[in-house]
Amino acid sequence: MELRLDRATLIPALTNIATRLRIDSAMSTSEAGSGHPTSCCSAADIVAALFFAEMRFDPSRPHDPDSDRFVLSKGHAAPLLYAAWAEAGAFDRSELLKLRTFGSDLEGHPTPRLPFVDVATGSLGQGICAAVGSALNARRIQSDYRTYCLLGDGESAEGSVWEAADVAVMARLDSLCGVTDVNALGQSRPTMWQHDMEAFASRWRAFGWHAIVVDGHDFVALLGAFAEARVTRGRPTMILARTIKGKGVSFTEGKEGWHGRAFKKGEELDRALAELNGQIMPEPPGTDLAHSIPKPASASPAPNPPQAPAPPAYTLGEEVATREAYGTGLAKLAAADSRIVALDADVKNSTFSDKFEKVAPERFYENFIAEQVMVGAAMGLAARGAIPFPSTFACFLSRAADFVRMAAISGVGVKFAGSHAGVSIGEDGPSQMALEDLAMFRAQPNITVFYPSDAVSTEKLLTLMAYHPGPAYMRTSRPKTPVIYANDETFEVGGLKVLRQTPGDVCTVIGAGVTVFEALKAHDQLKAGGRAIRVIDLYSVSPVDVEALVAAGRATGGHLITVEDHYAGGGIGDAVAMAVAGAGLTVRRLAVREIPRSGKPDELLERFGISAHHIVDAVNQVAG
Amino acid sequence: MELRLDRATLIPALTNIATRLRIDSAMSTSEAGSGHPTSCCSAADIVAALFFAEMRFDPSRPHDPDSDRFVLSKGHAAPLLYAAWAEAGAFDRSELLKLRTFGSDLEGHPTPRLPFVDVATGSLGQGICAAVGSALNARRIQSDYRTYCLLGDGESAEGSVWEAADVAVMARLDSLCGVTDVNALGQSRPTMWQHDMEAFASRWRAFGWHAIVVDGHDFVALLGAFAEARVTRGRPTMILARTIKGKGVSFTEGKEGWHGRAFKKGEELDRALAELNGQIMPEPPGTDLAHSIPKPASASPAPNPPQAPAPPAYTLGEEVATREAYGTGLAKLAAADSRIVALDADVKNSTFSDKFEKVAPERFYENFIAEQVMVGAAMGLAARGAIPFPSTFACFLSRAADFVRMAAISGVGVKFAGSHAGVSIGEDGPSQMALEDLAMFRAQPNITVFYPSDAVSTEKLLTLMAYHPGPAYMRTSRPKTPVIYANDETFEVGGLKVLRQTPGDVCTVIGAGVTVFEALKAHDQLKAGGRAIRVIDLYSVSPVDVEALVAAGRATGGHLITVEDHYAGGGIGDAVAMAVAGAGLTVRRLAVREIPRSGKPDELLERFGISAHHIVDAVNQVAG
Repeated sequence: MELRLDRATLIPALTNIATRLRIDSAMSTSEAGSGHPTSCCSAADIVAALFFAEMRFDPSRPHDPDSDRFVLSKGHAAPLLYAAWAEAGAFDRSELLKLRTFGSDLEGHPTPRLPFVDVATGSLGQGICAAVGSALNARRIQSDYRTYCLLGDGESAEGSVWEAADVAVMARLDSLCGVTDVNALGQSRPTMWQHDMEAFASRWRAFGWHAIVVDGHDFVALLGAFAEARVTRGRPTMILARTIKGKGVSFTEGKEGWHGRAFKKGEELDRALAELNGQIMPEPPGTDLAHSIPKPASASPAPNPPQAPAPPAYTLGEEVATREAYGTGLAKLAAADSRIVALDADVKNSTFSDKFEKVAPERFYENFIAEQVMVGAAMGLAARGAIPFPSTFACFLSRAADFVRMAAISGVGVKFAGSHAGVSIGEDGPSQMALEDLAMFRAQPNITVFYPSDAVSTEKLLTLMAYHPGPAYMRTSRPKTPVIYANDETFEVGGLKVLRQTPGDVCTVIGAGVTVFEALKAHDQLKAGGRAIRVIDLYSVSPVDVEALVAAGRATGGHLITVEDHYAGGGIGDAVAMAVAGAGLTVRRLAVREIPRSGKPDELLERFGISAHHIVDAVNQVAG
Repeated sequence: MELRLDRATLIPALTNIATRLRIDSAMSTSEAGSGHPTSCCSAADIVAALFFAEMRFDPSRPHDPDSDRFVLSKGHAAPLLYAAWAEAGAFDRSELLKLRTFGSDLEGHPTPRLPFVDVATGSLGQGICAAVGSALNARRIQSDYRTYCLLGDGESAEGSVWEAADVAVMARLDSLCGVTDVNALGQSRPTMWQHDMEAFASRWRAFGWHAIVVDGHDFVALLGAFAEARVTRGRPTMILARTIKGKGVSFTEGKEGWHGRAFKKGEELDRALAELNGQIMPEPPGTDLAHSIPKPASASPAPNPPQAPAPPAYTLGEEVATREAYGTGLAKLAAADSRIVALDADVKNSTFSDKFEKVAPERFYENFIAEQVMVGAAMGLAARGAIPFPSTFACFLSRAADFVRMAAISGVGVKFAGSHAGVSIGEDGPSQMALEDLAMFRAQPNITVFYPSDAVSTEKLLTLMAYHPGPAYMRTSRPKTPVIYANDETFEVGGLKVLRQTPGDVCTVIGAGVTVFEALKAHDQLKAGGRAIRVIDLYSVSPVDVEALVAAGRATGGHLITVEDHYAGGGIGDAVAMAVAGAGLTVRRLAVREIPRSGKPDELLERFGISAHHIVDAVNQVAG
């Protein structure tokens, strides 16, 4: 164990930093009138030791690609995180008193509005997944930065923590070091395992981690554990730190009823501060730890400049499933840009992400059947400069819905891909059919949603989503569909394609994915009967092309019909209706309106009301 | 270890049953042209032993409250499950050949359309959570039935499995016995741990389970393990069965590339069947295991007849948060009906479900911070006759979105409750704000969604949702709001309340929850300026009262304005627009349209466009 300073100098300096972090946490939450000071106090020594005697970073350049990372998985200890960055000099300490106020980026829980926060936390069990992604990224860019993650003990009940535990071991992520703040008290009661440190250690060891149990208020023990983690090879380390909730303020130490409670300004806060101030120790001169933080040690090699991916190469009319075109396009992106990475949850041979693996196995991350860590790791990768494509069956992305939510809050560029959407998968039955995925992704105000119908649009939209800033989702289908676009067709965020139109169209039918072909069939059947309709491929579901939809509606008697392989709520019908609201048009929605069942794809499209036949009926009804 | 028959009789009989189950699995999937025969073959001996030498049940009365339960967590082995029930005599074996066809209840993955399936499976890692709920229910009704759950090995990577592991140990569920079919092969590649049985055993032991490693093709070992589980007290047992994927069909045994692949009819199927038929052993006469399955041993006491819960007891104008009224109402239900149970994820003091715990601690299930098992266990409880209310912050129900999806597919009466909805929570920031929960629940076609604005409606709707069949969701708010309804006011599924109306109303403003009060404020401000608006409390968001909305719109110049503390996509605006589609009305939506941030509740309602001020502006715009 090598220490930056001799122990007699270092320990008092760290002690005083930790005390200042506690003081700042207490003062800022009291000023805000809410927050979690006791959750900060338990972890203050851990954070002081990490930030001021272990990590290598430049407080003025938090985004440095080679900087060590710190992920606060127990996001409610945000005031402690903010205090540490203020102590390190990233911003003025007086800012801390703006905690939780409107307009301050020092929010109740950390978000990447702050340059030193990679991903938003505050939904427990997610930070450790993002930390896995951060550690994977270090390998991708050949950097020796390390990733540290502070978890709560209560948080460890989240299954996502154990998904992360497995993936980190499988990937041999020895640059990852977790610290669990075992303060034994949850929000509403003592935690499941309280101070049974062996319960924690045996779990982490069973999952293959190097586990170290320490007293979380003993700097020598903490620094020793960090040093041990640093030299542990081939697997990640979890430091299990036994702590006291509310440490430093005697009337809260180890007491229930103090979770999420700020000290009342006045006597209560004054008592707490008096105690804490009394803990400041005499310090040898010249121990300014905040100004001697080591800078990142390595400079990772400059990445190769990205190339344009190879263009689509299909023949009109060729039958290709969009899920397969997704794999093909992803492999092309892999070859063109080293930032592109793919994450799988043991369905790579169904989503065709195995095509990516063949091209770039070192950037293909297998998570086995664990969708939460797949998406969480993608968040960490995206925050560190990668362009991650986590893919699985669209229905199983709902397993990571809370991660989708936090990815949106984080604004990180995770590129979700969900295959096997809708009843058109057929025989496997409802458990495998995504019928609410558009609702999930469309609800988020900053997620771009694409739903291609053919192979060309799939590849083109894939490249678009890779380079469009922020999170995005692509929905693909199981059945083969004919190629309807030329290889040089262009697509855009918020675009659509009018596939059929005449001046005499009696209404506009709007489909996407497989229903585009039902709409085209309906068009042909109606045409045979002498009736013309406009057909739109709404490949961009969020945002939608408002002007073009309104124009189409106005040109076709004011009648819009949407048809989607999705439940009625939150999907394409709602998106179109919202877009044209106020334009005096009517929107008739064809969608799945009950729990479906197994059957052949065509039988199910018919039975659940979204086949060509139903479109023809609807057209005849609305157009009279 | 006591066996029902002597070993020399029993083993050949079980062997033959297992072989028949393999034959049926092969034949039915080949006939269907899809399915997972090799995943059935690995588990056939386990299922044969369980169904025909361990479990107590009456094949003709699968819903018997005291019947042992079997949950197929690895739902893709559905053909094996169906074959076992056919073998037990529940239906004719010829039905098996209708597997996966439209109209047959023998779907690709099991659903409760079948009377012997408690919850739909096929999204991995959920069945074990439901099994926890089933075991909790046995304790609730004082039955000695046991719950068995068959998991896949690949499935064990799902975090929800480890959430279930923790909760089962904390609840000392010794009536729960899991079996993991360790066949070492996932869908796309070998599993994480393959045949490292110690990797499995050490995990389960670290989590506190009694773990037994056996050869999953050795009946003596399997029956011994079941017997050992039966006498293990104070904790659940996990039997880790080492198996061969495709067992019994030599050309698939332990081979990659056979997952989810049916044998081709003709030569391939014939070869498989020839091998399997060759494994039928001579059997001593009189060993008809299918007709000697022991019936359920106990008869649980008849439950007390439910009473009407105590009515609301508020004063008009009294300030009460709907989340608190939820707790108050839930405690009343607890006292009135022993089927009502509550599940928490360490936020009982914020959701006020701790009021339930005080009344009925034996029916209050703490899951710590593990929302997936909370919801999954609720599914199991609901399937067994309880009326479960899992509650947490509404945003964290998204952690269990895939469970919500499967609860809808299952049609089980889980009564979800989400508190702290929307930006009106204030300072905690976006990670704690549910702004997509209505989209999530409303997308499902069979989930009733309530969103009360005051304490009286909360209690009334709570009772309604408890006894309305099927899944339901109640959204509650953090801030205190005034009581606006009399204690004897009536509410209904699909209802709404017109709070303000005059013949001269220029438009209708539709709010729910906290925005009802913004609408009322807007009403008063507009009235002061001589302008009248209609105000609706849309407490039932799904279904909505179509007729009343259309009538209100028609009576108020065709103008509807919705205002919701939710993102624009998938919420109240979309629900209203869908309801009035085709009626010639316009719907203007006020909703949160960007990622919010910390601040005071009122600041946030104003900043994100849903305050009284924005309503007034919108009214003035639409009404000219």
